[in-house]
Amino acid sequence: MEWHSWIGYLAATLTTLSFLPQAIKVITTRNTQGISGLMYVMFVCGLVLWLAYGLLIEDTAVSMANFLTLLFALPILVIKYRSR
Amino acid sequence: MEWHSWIGYLAATLTTLSFLPQAIKVITTRNTQGISGLMYVMFVCGLVLWLAYGLLIEDTAVSMANFLTLLFALPILVIKYRSR
Repeated sequence: MEWHSWIGYLAATLTTLSFLPQAIKVITTRNTQGISGLMYVMFVCGLVLWLAYGLLIEDTAVSMANFLTLLFALPILVIKYRSR
Repeated sequence: MEWHSWIGYLAATLTTLSFLPQAIKVITTRNTQGISGLMYVMFVCGLVLWLAYGLLIEDTAVSMANFLTLLFALPILVIKYRSR
C-alpha cells in the first residue's frame, strides 16, 4: 500500500469517529441546543446516499465508513427532533 | 458519466453543504451548547488530512469537497473554544 493511502485511511477514521463524542454527548445529556437540525437532516440523507454509492461500486471502505457514521449521526438527528 | 457517479456527487454535495446551516447558526447565535468540542477537533484534523490526501492523489473532487467543509467547520471549532 502506498503511503498516500495511510493518510486517506487516517482521514476517514478521524472524520468517522468524530461523530462518536457528539453522539455520546447528545445521548447522555439530551441537550441539543446549538445543534442545527437542518444540518443533521442533510447529513443523514447524504450518508444514506454515500452508503448506497459504496454498495453500488462495491467499495467496502466507502460503505463501512458511511455506515458507521450513520450509526453515530442518526441518534443525534432523532434526539434533536424529539427534544423540540 | 455513469448514473452511479451522480449518486456519489449528490452524496458529497449533501454531506459538504450540511455544515453550512450549522456554521450559520453558530456564527449568528454564538450558542455552542450541546455541540461537542472534541467532535470538531477530530473532524477538522480529519478534513485537513482529507485535503492533503486529495492534493496528493490530485483528485479535485476530494480536495474541493474537503476544502469547502473545512471552511464551514473551522469557525464552529473556533467559536466553540472561544465561548468557554
